[in-house]
Amino acid sequence: MHTALCDLLDIEHPIVGFSPSEHVVAAISRAGGLGVLGCVRFNDPDELDATLSWLDEETGGRPYGVDVVMPTHGPAEGTTVDLDKLIPDGHRDFVQRTLLKLGVPPLPDGESAGDGVLGWLHSVARSHVEVALAHRPRLIANALGPPPADVIDRAHEHGLLVAALAGRADHARSHVAGGVDIVVAQGYEAGGHTGEIASMVLVPEVVDAVGDQAPVLAAGGIGSGRQIAAALALGAVGVWMGSAWLITEEYAFGAAQPALRQALLDATSADTVRSRVYSGKPARLLRNRWTQAWTESGAPEPLPMPLQNLLVSEAHNRLMRAGDPTVVPMPVGQIVGRMNKVRPVADVMAALVTEADETLKRLGSL
Amino acid sequence: MHTALCDLLDIEHPIVGFSPSEHVVAAISRAGGLGVLGCVRFNDPDELDATLSWLDEETGGRPYGVDVVMPTHGPAEGTTVDLDKLIPDGHRDFVQRTLLKLGVPPLPDGESAGDGVLGWLHSVARSHVEVALAHRPRLIANALGPPPADVIDRAHEHGLLVAALAGRADHARSHVAGGVDIVVAQGYEAGGHTGEIASMVLVPEVVDAVGDQAPVLAAGGIGSGRQIAAALALGAVGVWMGSAWLITEEYAFGAAQPALRQALLDATSADTVRSRVYSGKPARLLRNRWTQAWTESGAPEPLPMPLQNLLVSEAHNRLMRAGDPTVVPMPVGQIVGRMNKVRPVADVMAALVTEADETLKRLGSL
Repeated sequence: MHTALCDLLDIEHPIVGFSPSEHVVAAISRAGGLGVLGCVRFNDPDELDATLSWLDEETGGRPYGVDVVMPTHGPAEGTTVDLDKLIPDGHRDFVQRTLLKLGVPPLPDGESAGDGVLGWLHSVARSHVEVALAHRPRLIANALGPPPADVIDRAHEHGLLVAALAGRADHARSHVAGGVDIVVAQGYEAGGHTGEIASMVLVPEVVDAVGDQAPVLAAGGIGSGRQIAAALALGAVGVWMGSAWLITEEYAFGAAQPALRQALLDATSADTVRSRVYSGKPARLLRNRWTQAWTESGAPEPLPMPLQNLLVSEAHNRLMRAGDPTVVPMPVGQIVGRMNKVRPVADVMAALVTEADETLKRLGSL
Repeated sequence: MHTALCDLLDIEHPIVGFSPSEHVVAAISRAGGLGVLGCVRFNDPDELDATLSWLDEETGGRPYGVDVVMPTHGPAEGTTVDLDKLIPDGHRDFVQRTLLKLGVPPLPDGESAGDGVLGWLHSVARSHVEVALAHRPRLIANALGPPPADVIDRAHEHGLLVAALAGRADHARSHVAGGVDIVVAQGYEAGGHTGEIASMVLVPEVVDAVGDQAPVLAAGGIGSGRQIAAALALGAVGVWMGSAWLITEEYAFGAAQPALRQALLDATSADTVRSRVYSGKPARLLRNRWTQAWTESGAPEPLPMPLQNLLVSEAHNRLMRAGDPTVVPMPVGQIVGRMNKVRPVADVMAALVTEADETLKRLGSL
């Protein structure tokens, strides 16, 4: 299985793998795909800098990418303290009541509640870009809308390719008009922030809209070689996968690992929900007692980005640490139903490639 | 492009086309696919009988199918008059207010308001089955859940194959355990009654669950040859398409035709919504001023099936006859964004087959 993407990115397989874990990212790149590091979790630029230095080493000369989040309709800027003032007391009360009702214990003594995700503030995302440019990623991706023009220019000056996610064909058109090099057509079934048009419809629509100007990757619902072959049938030159790596051996999540892993292994494809409770923008998450609590009568509407994540930041830490698979707050796609085995990244990659090759061969004989 | 489905159904192309129009159905079968007539609109069994007699003739010996709707969790039975008593006045008031607000004129003098759709009552659906068995369909499909055991037995006694739609792998398993011969895995992006799991994820999941016992068709989001190839990549032996035929030359809709056709031609893939306002169960519809009215503050929750359709039955007639493309109440899938040209069924079929063949060839060379 060789496509134009392999030549463009100098990779062996047309598989781009997104992960917030540098260990997963390095393993994907070493296995012949392109690992892309999700930067949104790095509130501290120095920590990102150290992580990218590690990646420069551990990818052994293979290309990798970084993913920042710069929403078009930007969230309010501000320090955590300023932003905190914008959160209504009724929302705080609901969160506390819900944690009590769900039987979620407080954080262990001495643990900080954390600051919440600030990476989707423009100011923080821009610091991610600057840090990344001092390293050697091959690609910079924006997970929400088109990157600002000056960021695209800076990336191009440094010889980086720029990718952007699109959930609609008109968004893809404006990305490409703005200088984006690679479009990731991300369908409804994807984990995390996602739109409403499913991959089967979206991918060929985006390919027909911009495919003659920019390579299109398919994202959303991809977790097997048959799905990669389907994406290629739809006109994509490769795939972008996120969820599948969450249950690899390389994906570590500290004290929360056992409950998180169990929740992912247990979930069927029907056990996700597209909801604003994680960040304030619609994102697909595991459906569980926590997300259900927000749909019950009397629950408040989630706040806009970035306030919602600040509101639930401490709650997220507590839910993650509760040791209870039925409450973990976790973005994941519908493919979670097929994530049933913990394997090393290299094994996942090998299985994807083998099945895709077999499928392409089968299709060629029809 | 030849699959096991072609042999099983004695058709040339592995394309099953659903339509409420017997003219479309006959044209699909004549073009080498399997046309399937949607029976839910036939409140009068004699009318269905006459239509099937016509189909027996007009398909020129080619196989065709019928589609009935027998929900597992059956709606209340009753005559229209009885059922009408179960509709709250507040709901009726909302419908009338909304029609006024949308500027929808009354029906022309002497036009009956119609009885609404009764075809999803078990009693009526069973009469459809009995009528069908007196004709020569090759296949009987159930669009909501598994057909009752005695209906499956009756169909098998008459040499018919039984198909059932499934939106989840566990539903597919129970269909096959109950004697269903063909499973239609229908994804979120489909028009009409549909579930939440998108085709990219659902199809291989259903294939892995039951594919060794029953052929699986992919439905939802299919409207081009690339999408057919993708469905085959995912393990389906063919496709089930509904929406694409709505703008064929053969699809006639009387006085409502111009506005309906315009609405379909205008809609993008983002212009649908999954809503209970049509029938009481979640169904994908054109998103327009009518469906939006039901999401506004103060709008009532839709009623359960079959009450909701009885409630909106007269409104549906008026909305259809209003000559206004922004209010037509119409089930359609996300593929509507690519339905941009009125063509004869035979041309649609030829384009599908040509593009699918080209795609399979391209994939074989990767």
